[in-house]
Amino acid sequence: MSQAPREIETLIDLMARLPGLGPRSARRAVLYLIRKRGLLLRPLAEAMQAVADSARECVVCGNVTTGEVCEICSSEKRANGTLCVVEDVADLWAMERAGVFSGRYHVLGGTLSALDGVGPEELRLPKLVQRVADEGITEVILALNATIDGQTTAHYIADELEGRCSVTSLAQGVPIGGELDYLDEGTITAALKARKAL
Amino acid sequence: MSQAPREIETLIDLMARLPGLGPRSARRAVLYLIRKRGLLLRPLAEAMQAVADSARECVVCGNVTTGEVCEICSSEKRANGTLCVVEDVADLWAMERAGVFSGRYHVLGGTLSALDGVGPEELRLPKLVQRVADEGITEVILALNATIDGQTTAHYIADELEGRCSVTSLAQGVPIGGELDYLDEGTITAALKARKAL
Repeated sequence: MSQAPREIETLIDLMARLPGLGPRSARRAVLYLIRKRGLLLRPLAEAMQAVADSARECVVCGNVTTGEVCEICSSEKRANGTLCVVEDVADLWAMERAGVFSGRYHVLGGTLSALDGVGPEELRLPKLVQRVADEGITEVILALNATIDGQTTAHYIADELEGRCSVTSLAQGVPIGGELDYLDEGTITAALKARKAL
Repeated sequence: MSQAPREIETLIDLMARLPGLGPRSARRAVLYLIRKRGLLLRPLAEAMQAVADSARECVVCGNVTTGEVCEICSSEKRANGTLCVVEDVADLWAMERAGVFSGRYHVLGGTLSALDGVGPEELRLPKLVQRVADEGITEVILALNATIDGQTTAHYIADELEGRCSVTSLAQGVPIGGELDYLDEGTITAALKARKAL
């Protein structure tokens, strides 16, 4: 026999499909949820339903939003002529947590990848070129991951936008709090090449 | 400003309260859920609602069930005169995964703990004594965690049941400080087979 009633097994199976949870941690989480039924399980069910009903992609930048256009794209204050290009919404949130960028975003939805058959049409790339023209963008800041696919995509975008606006990318170097002994050779090389006068 | 619309921030905050997930993994999980809206987010919301509506404690043993009495307590086959006492439902599931015990269970709902002020009345202990008499139990198998509180509770139960039925406990095969839910089935099987009179 199964260990738990059908409804509970169904919930465990679904929870186990979340990133970061396996079958065992899903079981623990479900037992915890059942104990905290009123405080956590019901509110969670309702919050999920609300997000399922309301969450959608911003038609302008690809951010997650509940309206047609996201808060950042709707805010006139953020229209400063710079556009920050990120791979996905998690990266946009990471940039916003840093709180240092005051322009708007463009979420690609991934990176170019010959191996996975992802070409420019699969990403929000044509829309980027169009936005640069329509919104009078003067600088596009590429905040792509420092992976091979991320850097390939960065170079592709730089080529596409050549002559239309300036294209910059996040500096590469030693992370704050980082110790040289734990850094890879690539990072040290990049940091040395980009050294600045103190 | 917050990084995401209110509905999504609410969901992230609730998800971050699950055991095994922190704020960062909760954000990742929520973005994943939004991408898999039809396949995972909606079914999960519905499964949680179903469990919130149906899950309850078995009135006999304390197992999680959707009826009045759990499957194990309803099954005549499991009435073999032995009762396995566990601390919580996760431990009951761990025993069932081992698949070696064919009797019924009694879920204490914790262990005695002077430090936390948990006395016999806070646990399902009076009910255990009553069941031993009512159900003609000949052997009570203590499958409590090999922690100090677990073993204190085991000795308390052995004293309570002295002269009423034989009381055995899982063999020392359970590693000291270990918790049942984290053990492999082989160890649980070996420990059950090597149970000794207290």
